Amino acid sequence: MSELEEVMGEIRAFVAARGWEPFHDPKNLAMAVASEAGELCAELRWIASDRADEFTQRPDVRQGVEDEAADVAITLLMFCDRVGIDLVSAIRRKLKKNALRYPEPREGQAAGAFPVPEPER
Amino acid sequence: MSELEEVMGEIRAFVAARGWEPFHDPKNLAMAVASEAGELCAELRWIASDRADEFTQRPDVRQGVEDEAADVAITLLMFCDRVGIDLVSAIRRKLKKNALRYPEPREGQAAGAFPVPEPER
Amino acid sequence: MSELEEVMGEIRAFVAARGWEPFHDPKNLAMAVASEAGELCAELRWIASDRADEFTQRPDVRQGVEDEAADVAITLLMFCDRVGIDLVSAIRRKLKKNALRYPEPREGQAAGAFPVPEPER
Amino acid sequence: MSELEEVMGEIRAFVAARGWEPFHDPKNLAMAVASEAGELCAELRWIASDRADEFTQRPDVRQGVEDEAADVAITLLMFCDRVGIDLVSAIRRKLKKNALRYPEPREGQAAGAFPVPEPER
Repeated sequence: MSELEEVMGEIRAFVAARGWEPFHDPKNLAMAVASEAGELCAELRWIASDRADEFTQRPDVRQGVEDEAADVAITLLMFCDRVGIDLVSAIRRKLKKNALRYPEPREGQAAGAFPVPEPER
Repeated sequence: MSELEEVMGEIRAFVAARGWEPFHDPKNLAMAVASEAGELCAELRWIASDRADEFTQRPDVRQGVEDEAADVAITLLMFCDRVGIDLVSAIRRKLKKNALRYPEPREGQAAGAFPVPEPER
Repeated sequence: MSELEEVMGEIRAFVAARGWEPFHDPKNLAMAVASEAGELCAELRWIASDRADEFTQRPDVRQGVEDEAADVAITLLMFCDRVGIDLVSAIRRKLKKNALRYPEPREGQAAGAFPVPEPER
Repeated sequence: MSELEEVMGEIRAFVAARGWEPFHDPKNLAMAVASEAGELCAELRWIASDRADEFTQRPDVRQGVEDEAADVAITLLMFCDRVGIDLVSAIRRKLKKNALRYPEPREGQAAGAFPVPEPER
């Protein structure tokens, strides 16, 4: 069993022990993902981009950031479990799609020549 | 190497091949997570809760839902990689915290006696 | 002066009295909007669609919902103020664009024949 | 009639002409707000904080930013209309609450001495 399947089992047991399954339809869980993503944003909204690396390493900040990242992951895994999505396979399929959409820069072309504005990446 | 570490390596290679690292500070990536979570919400915003399970199984819907779930995961993994968060460990720590906050119902207490409204779960 | 301009003045005074302008660049404020939108979602994530109307009228729920709606509006107005967007004009322009994208149903065509799934409305 | 009430009337007419009311319960609309907030984030996710002011003034960027801000406002106004929230009053009430939570700096205290990290503002 993979590490992710193991942790998925732990999440499933957590939900079952509390009888929360009736609340975990895909719509509710997608909303929960957005809500947790909003909390992750809250952690970083007032810090400037160029200070964000250093900021997230501060002992008084890091724990909150980790917790919010974990909450996004937990709700997303609950969503995938309910819908029947194998997340690792879905990631790999999506990376292939993204590779078509954003081809690697050709030789001689500047890597990182990122098209800003880049609203739809 | 775990399955998740493998896929993380693939994501890292994808980013490196395009020279995107300079854009991937933690603030930008947290914003990208919120943006992808918003797209996941978009897939499910007009469907009623009690039809959401059936809806996400429709062949013409499922692919989009999988893609959006994958995008949330990809941006979240990029975020964790940049900040140095081991996501599986973070999930386990957070589940323990959540267990303190939402204790299992005691014997005789209705499981699933979910306190609705439940704004801060 | 319109009611909205008045309330914008009050928000501006609130920010100035606390010296928060340096934190209010458009990126930070867009992130703050997402964070407040996430909190609005949190209020409604566990309630079924068909009970959401009744739910939001409950005295113990309504205040929280109002507060979160207000926070989304406040951060959005701060964003518009910083960027120099006249929000009412922007809404009217966008409604015109949306009208092209979603034409009114023609006579004989069912109104409300909403194309579900409707991922990009 | 205030400017905001006027534009609310236009939004209401837009929705009625398309027969969309059945889809506009408060849960769906909260989700739509999150989805539009995500699109606003998408516009600004790759630009550094200290370049965001200049960026949002670029002619090729500004229109998209305005459109996304308008979409957040439109969905939020639909939400308030459905729930029966007078948005301007709600904003004023919330500003008063926020003033208690974030008192003005006293004389001699540095204005703008913003407590960063500031995860719960």
